[in-house]
Amino acid sequence: MTLNKSDRVELVHGGGGEAMMNLVNRVIVSKVKIGRIFNGLGIWDLDDGASMPIGDFELVFTSDGYTINPLFFPGGDIGKLAITGTINDLSVMGAKPLAILDDIIVEEGFPVADLEKIISSIISVAESLNIAIIGGDFKVMPKGKLDKIIIASTGIGVAERGRVIRDSGLKPGDKIIVTGTVGEHEIALLSVREGLTFESNIISDLAPLWPLMEKALKVGGITAAKDPTRGGLASTLNEMAKKSRVCIWIYEDNIPIRSEVKAACEMLGLDPLYLACEGRAIIGVEASKAEEVLDAIKSTEIGKNATIIGEVRSEPTGYVVLQTTIGGKRVIEPPIGMPLPRIC
Amino acid sequence: MTLNKSDRVELVHGGGGEAMMNLVNRVIVSKVKIGRIFNGLGIWDLDDGASMPIGDFELVFTSDGYTINPLFFPGGDIGKLAITGTINDLSVMGAKPLAILDDIIVEEGFPVADLEKIISSIISVAESLNIAIIGGDFKVMPKGKLDKIIIASTGIGVAERGRVIRDSGLKPGDKIIVTGTVGEHEIALLSVREGLTFESNIISDLAPLWPLMEKALKVGGITAAKDPTRGGLASTLNEMAKKSRVCIWIYEDNIPIRSEVKAACEMLGLDPLYLACEGRAIIGVEASKAEEVLDAIKSTEIGKNATIIGEVRSEPTGYVVLQTTIGGKRVIEPPIGMPLPRIC
Repeated sequence: MTLNKSDRVELVHGGGGEAMMNLVNRVIVSKVKIGRIFNGLGIWDLDDGASMPIGDFELVFTSDGYTINPLFFPGGDIGKLAITGTINDLSVMGAKPLAILDDIIVEEGFPVADLEKIISSIISVAESLNIAIIGGDFKVMPKGKLDKIIIASTGIGVAERGRVIRDSGLKPGDKIIVTGTVGEHEIALLSVREGLTFESNIISDLAPLWPLMEKALKVGGITAAKDPTRGGLASTLNEMAKKSRVCIWIYEDNIPIRSEVKAACEMLGLDPLYLACEGRAIIGVEASKAEEVLDAIKSTEIGKNATIIGEVRSEPTGYVVLQTTIGGKRVIEPPIGMPLPRIC
Repeated sequence: MTLNKSDRVELVHGGGGEAMMNLVNRVIVSKVKIGRIFNGLGIWDLDDGASMPIGDFELVFTSDGYTINPLFFPGGDIGKLAITGTINDLSVMGAKPLAILDDIIVEEGFPVADLEKIISSIISVAESLNIAIIGGDFKVMPKGKLDKIIIASTGIGVAERGRVIRDSGLKPGDKIIVTGTVGEHEIALLSVREGLTFESNIISDLAPLWPLMEKALKVGGITAAKDPTRGGLASTLNEMAKKSRVCIWIYEDNIPIRSEVKAACEMLGLDPLYLACEGRAIIGVEASKAEEVLDAIKSTEIGKNATIIGEVRSEPTGYVVLQTTIGGKRVIEPPIGMPLPRIC
């Protein structure tokens, strides 16, 4: 997909897929000449955050804008999503979350009570992990100029120097762990938005990953990690495979999915591999440490359904291959734009 | 102004005045229990940024959401505004800007060419000061859900430990410097938005303050600094007077204002003391260093019209007093909400 000067930004450019990468690369990433500090990770790494080595430590920074519809959903709200998303981006980089700054922009007429609920969600997640809320900003846009609220959340975390986890560190032979059942977040949001009811309620998997990652990191042997948000497993595994220049081979039978999510996917015609999660990580681990890391993850509440879903092979480089239940093999393509109804 | 549960956020709550402080204090600042890290400056300080002491240094963080109408104006655009505002918040804290992260959220249908112009403004200011663009995020909201574009910009800067400049450090006897003529930014925006034409074009004062602040800091003796953005001199001087528990006494004759801005204010019925600037700082300096700091500032291009506009007195504590040309005295009240047409 090429862009001309007369082109306009389309929804597909915000979907987290290839269309977005093309636009972002064209208008930002390729134009930047100073893209890192102190030889840390920077904009060209396109990882979950950037880093700045200082002495024995490496500070990690991440910043994301959160827009979501609906604002309140089973298992959370946009406030919990913003702080959790920030914590998770730091966590999958192996960085202990220290502090956040939030820019909150609301539409004129937004109910103060809703604002209080949303901020109370942010504060309560932060306190539960001893994360400081050190600053931010508050703006109001005139009625009709913004749909309700946007939160831009920036996180600061810390890792030992040289111990930051990349999404590009997979090596052939590594095992691939997913830390829990996939897709509840996206289905929970869609169910509210589309007014769908399922036999049993599906609650978003939204949860901070640091307690789980901290345990996994203590065991060691982790070569890569990333959280499967926009575009789900398909998008995230493809990104990891491409950046690591390896093939990720996964087994359909091993992917943990709740039966309610499977049923919802069948009803809605969705592929669960593309569903966004907000409390899951995909972790690559050296084979010799895989079982021990898995046990550590399973010892946490949100990691109890963690599973080894596959392994890293050397070829076909940059591809994700799914071995199906009946033994067939198919390539899992990255999403181009937005294969699913837009939730954020 | 008290708020009830049934209340809604009004435009006045985003104006940078007392109404905003009341709301922000009620829903955020008073609710946070962990509001700083490593005993740095945090959310309760309500300064231009937060800080994190590490070894011999103090990292400074600031984050702001930028919305503006119009997006392009004489002297800049929203991209230049976002990066400059971030640089300036770090600069008035005495921190050398190192890196930024930008979250860019655009409306579906936004012209790619405009996006390129805006981002090119960001990159060009960053490069001119050797500031790294290390990360960020890109989102698209559906048509009608956002008015064009929002940029949330986070900056990371560094100062020597204990040398961070506060907005609360003024002491009686200090001199107050304003680093240039006031109000061009707000008038430039209003003129475009309202379709006004003046005899001579008024260009925004938008400019990064670091080169100026760096020279001033080298001289020493700076006790406080803040940039007079939303609410202009009136808002900023009041905040500094209240936080420092002093009186700021300024002389009307000394305030540098271009005749075109004065004329525009008369035509529009605006008070120039309340006009937003985006390339000016208010700096408190020990009297013995004031002339030397002034000379250093005047040696820079954007500081050539710097002036000592007044001094710090002990009483009446928390007030800003203006001594007029004919010798009268009046208290300059902080803006309650939005005394001026809204530009951001």
